[in-house]
Amino acid sequence: MATKKEIRIGLIGTGFMGRTHSNGYSQVSHFFPELEYKPVLKAVCSRNAQKVQAFADQWGYESIETDWRALIARDDIDAVDICTPNDTHAEIAIAAAEAGKMILCEKPLARTLAEAQQMVDAIDKAGVANTVWYNYRRIPAVTLAKQIVASGKLGRIFHYRANFLQDWTISADVPQGGAGTWRMDVEAAGSGVTGDLLAHCIDTAMWINGAITDVSAVTETFVKERMHQLTGQVQPVGIDDACIFHCHFDNGSLGLFESTRYARGHKALYTFEINGENASIRWDLHDLNRLEYFDHADEGIVRGWRSIHVTDGDQPYMDKWWVPGLGIGYEHSFIHQVADFLKSLETGEPCSPNFQDALETQKVCEAVLESAASRSWKETGVEEFAGYSKEPA
Amino acid sequence: MATKKEIRIGLIGTGFMGRTHSNGYSQVSHFFPELEYKPVLKAVCSRNAQKVQAFADQWGYESIETDWRALIARDDIDAVDICTPNDTHAEIAIAAAEAGKMILCEKPLARTLAEAQQMVDAIDKAGVANTVWYNYRRIPAVTLAKQIVASGKLGRIFHYRANFLQDWTISADVPQGGAGTWRMDVEAAGSGVTGDLLAHCIDTAMWINGAITDVSAVTETFVKERMHQLTGQVQPVGIDDACIFHCHFDNGSLGLFESTRYARGHKALYTFEINGENASIRWDLHDLNRLEYFDHADEGIVRGWRSIHVTDGDQPYMDKWWVPGLGIGYEHSFIHQVADFLKSLETGEPCSPNFQDALETQKVCEAVLESAASRSWKETGVEEFAGYSKEPA
Amino acid sequence: MATKKEIRIGLIGTGFMGRTHSNGYSQVSHFFPELEYKPVLKAVCSRNAQKVQAFADQWGYESIETDWRALIARDDIDAVDICTPNDTHAEIAIAAAEAGKMILCEKPLARTLAEAQQMVDAIDKAGVANTVWYNYRRIPAVTLAKQIVASGKLGRIFHYRANFLQDWTISADVPQGGAGTWRMDVEAAGSGVTGDLLAHCIDTAMWINGAITDVSAVTETFVKERMHQLTGQVQPVGIDDACIFHCHFDNGSLGLFESTRYARGHKALYTFEINGENASIRWDLHDLNRLEYFDHADEGIVRGWRSIHVTDGDQPYMDKWWVPGLGIGYEHSFIHQVADFLKSLETGEPCSPNFQDALETQKVCEAVLESAASRSWKETGVEEFAGYSKEPA
Amino acid sequence: MATKKEIRIGLIGTGFMGRTHSNGYSQVSHFFPELEYKPVLKAVCSRNAQKVQAFADQWGYESIETDWRALIARDDIDAVDICTPNDTHAEIAIAAAEAGKMILCEKPLARTLAEAQQMVDAIDKAGVANTVWYNYRRIPAVTLAKQIVASGKLGRIFHYRANFLQDWTISADVPQGGAGTWRMDVEAAGSGVTGDLLAHCIDTAMWINGAITDVSAVTETFVKERMHQLTGQVQPVGIDDACIFHCHFDNGSLGLFESTRYARGHKALYTFEINGENASIRWDLHDLNRLEYFDHADEGIVRGWRSIHVTDGDQPYMDKWWVPGLGIGYEHSFIHQVADFLKSLETGEPCSPNFQDALETQKVCEAVLESAASRSWKETGVEEFAGYSKEPA
Repeated sequence: MATKKEIRIGLIGTGFMGRTHSNGYSQVSHFFPELEYKPVLKAVCSRNAQKVQAFADQWGYESIETDWRALIARDDIDAVDICTPNDTHAEIAIAAAEAGKMILCEKPLARTLAEAQQMVDAIDKAGVANTVWYNYRRIPAVTLAKQIVASGKLGRIFHYRANFLQDWTISADVPQGGAGTWRMDVEAAGSGVTGDLLAHCIDTAMWINGAITDVSAVTETFVKERMHQLTGQVQPVGIDDACIFHCHFDNGSLGLFESTRYARGHKALYTFEINGENASIRWDLHDLNRLEYFDHADEGIVRGWRSIHVTDGDQPYMDKWWVPGLGIGYEHSFIHQVADFLKSLETGEPCSPNFQDALETQKVCEAVLESAASRSWKETGVEEFAGYSKEPA
Repeated sequence: MATKKEIRIGLIGTGFMGRTHSNGYSQVSHFFPELEYKPVLKAVCSRNAQKVQAFADQWGYESIETDWRALIARDDIDAVDICTPNDTHAEIAIAAAEAGKMILCEKPLARTLAEAQQMVDAIDKAGVANTVWYNYRRIPAVTLAKQIVASGKLGRIFHYRANFLQDWTISADVPQGGAGTWRMDVEAAGSGVTGDLLAHCIDTAMWINGAITDVSAVTETFVKERMHQLTGQVQPVGIDDACIFHCHFDNGSLGLFESTRYARGHKALYTFEINGENASIRWDLHDLNRLEYFDHADEGIVRGWRSIHVTDGDQPYMDKWWVPGLGIGYEHSFIHQVADFLKSLETGEPCSPNFQDALETQKVCEAVLESAASRSWKETGVEEFAGYSKEPA
Repeated sequence: MATKKEIRIGLIGTGFMGRTHSNGYSQVSHFFPELEYKPVLKAVCSRNAQKVQAFADQWGYESIETDWRALIARDDIDAVDICTPNDTHAEIAIAAAEAGKMILCEKPLARTLAEAQQMVDAIDKAGVANTVWYNYRRIPAVTLAKQIVASGKLGRIFHYRANFLQDWTISADVPQGGAGTWRMDVEAAGSGVTGDLLAHCIDTAMWINGAITDVSAVTETFVKERMHQLTGQVQPVGIDDACIFHCHFDNGSLGLFESTRYARGHKALYTFEINGENASIRWDLHDLNRLEYFDHADEGIVRGWRSIHVTDGDQPYMDKWWVPGLGIGYEHSFIHQVADFLKSLETGEPCSPNFQDALETQKVCEAVLESAASRSWKETGVEEFAGYSKEPA
Repeated sequence: MATKKEIRIGLIGTGFMGRTHSNGYSQVSHFFPELEYKPVLKAVCSRNAQKVQAFADQWGYESIETDWRALIARDDIDAVDICTPNDTHAEIAIAAAEAGKMILCEKPLARTLAEAQQMVDAIDKAGVANTVWYNYRRIPAVTLAKQIVASGKLGRIFHYRANFLQDWTISADVPQGGAGTWRMDVEAAGSGVTGDLLAHCIDTAMWINGAITDVSAVTETFVKERMHQLTGQVQPVGIDDACIFHCHFDNGSLGLFESTRYARGHKALYTFEINGENASIRWDLHDLNRLEYFDHADEGIVRGWRSIHVTDGDQPYMDKWWVPGLGIGYEHSFIHQVADFLKSLETGEPCSPNFQDALETQKVCEAVLESAASRSWKETGVEEFAGYSKEPA
């Protein structure tokens, strides 16, 4: 271990994502001992000094900062991890790129396509390693789904459908803005479920099934006004509470996406299903260790959907964990992303999704919101997506 | 039993639906002995004399006809049951109405809204009892879903989503037209999955959740040409292989509907889910005796989706069958519809869905197809739907 | 149809089983038109003249009797169907055999092994066609399970486990004895869950997996006294409320069986699972159209339990019903048994399980009860079972 | 964090359990920051110096030992964690107790009851803190099950059944003995599935449902000879490949337990179900974040098994992790056990299950094996079990 190269991490933001990322850095060397690089928890930054110190103590960060600009200015930081609300991503990322830091940025890349484009430009100019935390790709069952489709087992794809259903904002008493509920504030978040939840679905979808070319969407805001935590005022709600869109993929398949925070009974139900000529596949986040698979080539009388418990050593990432039958959890997707980022430093290959890939996802989000606003179809402008190929692997 | 009043049935069409309806007539008196009326299998009609005689022998019809006009002309027929392909519904129904017969018509009511309107006009003029076989309403779990929503248990409805997924036409070798595959021929069927499958979903949806006011749709025809069974020629395929639409309901909820015959692994997977402020509900046809229900009022630590096995005597229709735990099947929905039709003759109330109700469903189908063709939102013109009320029962 | 040979049925008993059997006779010709024989509902017998007349009217029996001896004495009855409580099976069956009638007897064959042996002796002497209504074999998914095991797909069998869980007698207010609750009265029933429920599990198990050779059992009576409906007195409960046993099969596999009427939440949950060297299989009655199947030969990364929706035309009995995806129900197992009985009259082969087969099941039940009473292992004396072969088909 | 008291851990054994425990120590302070104590990874011990150094590097242990006696002799070790094969537990534990070390011992406590009793005696004499890693108790859904039963929601308990099904030893090519397969060697393991798997089931069962008083068991060894890895010789297999037993609990309920390594299709399927007068509960390890619950008090028409996704902050341990809907994995049960052990040092209460509790489980295991060997019922001698009370909490 003495020979491992260190990547000194500077984490900005100590909320939910600050915890998942910190856990990723803490755990990666325990389970991926073969990696050449190891992360070092050098510094963590947040505005409240007391809180950030407690966070540093809990996770073992060596130092703290209360101003992100100070963090970026430090020479002993190799990589900046951005876990702050969406409205700060662009400014921090551009500054970090200019300072020559590697960047690991939470999703969505930005509030708008314009912001995201500026970030990509900054990255391109700086030539620094970068990745965006679309973590769900790295749940083993999801990665396996990607491999199965890429292998050609499904044949021609006809349908891709995904949804992300939650129910935590049904009460009109949930406020908008401020810590914990900034996702409800359009200024901080940029959009509602589209950027928060559908962005995940779009990233997975284009990775597995290629570019989404045009979309037709509808959005709804069920609760029209909510109290703002920072102002104390009841204000109009600017975000989309729910969003549905159908679309075409470049490969000719039809897509269907839905997200809402008003689906009573679903806490974080991200699901997708892909129907191909020869086989189909489906997955849901509530039972994340399982993948369902239907193969029409199976003998007719014993043909059915297979419930695959993705915990065997020959399935993605699972050689790193326990023994067959013993599942892992949500947090592991972040550990896997850290491992893949460190591996990308060894190989020099990009760590997908990088900023450019996240920009493509942002294009779809923007087209979706424009389509809903104009009640018309919109082209996305996406032409290709890293990691997807029409030809079977 | 000697005192039961007889309804003499004349069945036209001996295909799949001819069998399900015949079974309904055969079984209803065994399980609904309290009804005042009983069906008598007086005559069955189909063009092939040999085949129709075999059908009559199998099901116990007293006589046969090979010309539906002859059947309608008979004095000993009280009710005409139309089980023929969609392109014949209008002509037969209008003639039967003019002859003063009760009419039980397979769904969809017609190929087009214009045809359907003529049928409703004829019925209105004739004043005869009528119903349309949207049978899925009468699966006990579906009827229970309707009762639960009507009771107000869900509170304000946010989302209604349904799909109907099949996979039987994926092979390019499946022909169009003729017996068995007339549903693939746009001339005979009027449309593809929209009239065949989504019409069921729309009927259930409006019955449970009220009028659909506007729609935005996309359709796709994956296999562009197929051999026509009657001509032997390879011809363009005129039907929609797949259709997706989102919509608004009059009560403010968002709707999402999808149907396809290209969803590998799904034979006849009709599903719906309804999300309300306080509770949610979902169902699928492949496990038709189950209804899933989530009630947010349950104590938090033991709250979850309930899998209700709808086989108890206090659940809809189930006092007629066996004992708790012992399920029924698809065919029972038709027996229930016969029972409800006979009951409607006792009470003088319409037997929903009647021709007028099916016309409302036709309006939505037509708007869906127009929306897909024009890539724009369309108003449906539906204002209300029989059996639905915004106020809890 | 004029050419079909008639089998004139005399049904004794108009309870739950009287209904399921009557439905079987009513429906068989509608769905199995190729059979040479057809049942005719000639007479039904029960002690209450008014009730039996109502039953006859409902089901279309031509005549009634109130004394079963009178029914058996009639020349116009070909087959006697025994649906009465267990304590009457032996006397009726022996008299019917002596009268030269075919016999279809409800399960269990008798209250005790001694009674059952007398019945088999009478049948053997009379040489009449006979069958016992262990109907669950003829649920398509169960028949498919039998075929899969017989084909050798599972390889060497290690484990067979089954249970039958109900919850309807938990309340101490449920009485014993009399109509509706004679199954609670040891005099009428012979035993509790062992004869009522485990007998089903044992019949299926030996049919699929061969003879059970020795057993070790425990029984429990949770509610020690209940009011008797006929006497009005609170009396000791003589039946087993619950029974568990493990056993050896002749093929070297281990068996595990459990039944109870005190499993809150389970209405009629009959389940079994079979683990073989190469594959496993499982089924449950609450979702009777599904069979689960695991094949270790599947490619590792996509290996999992398959949920087979047994509704395709190439699966047992399903060519007789609807189209793929559309399920059938509990009652269909009885229709299938009627069809198989009629078919056996064509072929001259026994209709399994016949009285001799049911006697083997009775041997296991008796050994189970003796084992529980003596707290020791008991040999069953079963050496082989009709329909089972160790060699793959 | 500077104020936390340190517990210096000396870990013996670097196999599968060495990893799960090390992860527990690494993670506990990240997620349970309120604890007064923190573990320090002081030393790890295994016979192979190279391998143990690699393990130390990977997990961050400060030092290594290759002789467990040396480890125990060190003054800078507060607690000894025993992760070695079963045949070494007694010797190490007794020596550690004599050295005044706290002890955390893998399960089963020992190979035999006699060994286990010696260990308890040593602990009692030494008066050191101790716990045994029956980790499954601390999966949140299992802990919730315990709470639900303890609250009295189920009422009188009628049935408790559990099984633990695996399939990894079906091939006759799997060897016995040596690293990785010492569980197949009766000398090293003491028994097969009884000590390895059923011991877990018994621990959970007695914790939730109280003492098991008598048992009747059967065991089987399907593959009679296997090559021994250390000798290279084909030797008789001394372990039980499968074990089934039924039993009585002190509270009058019936128990049923089964374990096998020959259940094709099941990797590590630990399941249990408890049926009470008013409610029932069930759980399985393959979907460990879910608990199923049936409450008979629910309104009849919407009554059904609830699938509880145990990921909310008011459910056991889950306030420590992420947000509702996001599951955790197998490894978390060990983190929870470390947390509870550290907490017990604060409170001075025993950390269940401790050696005494594990001795009670050992009594049941021994009775099970004796019952199987003698084909007779055996008393267990267990009178009570820590944490269980017949009275609702």
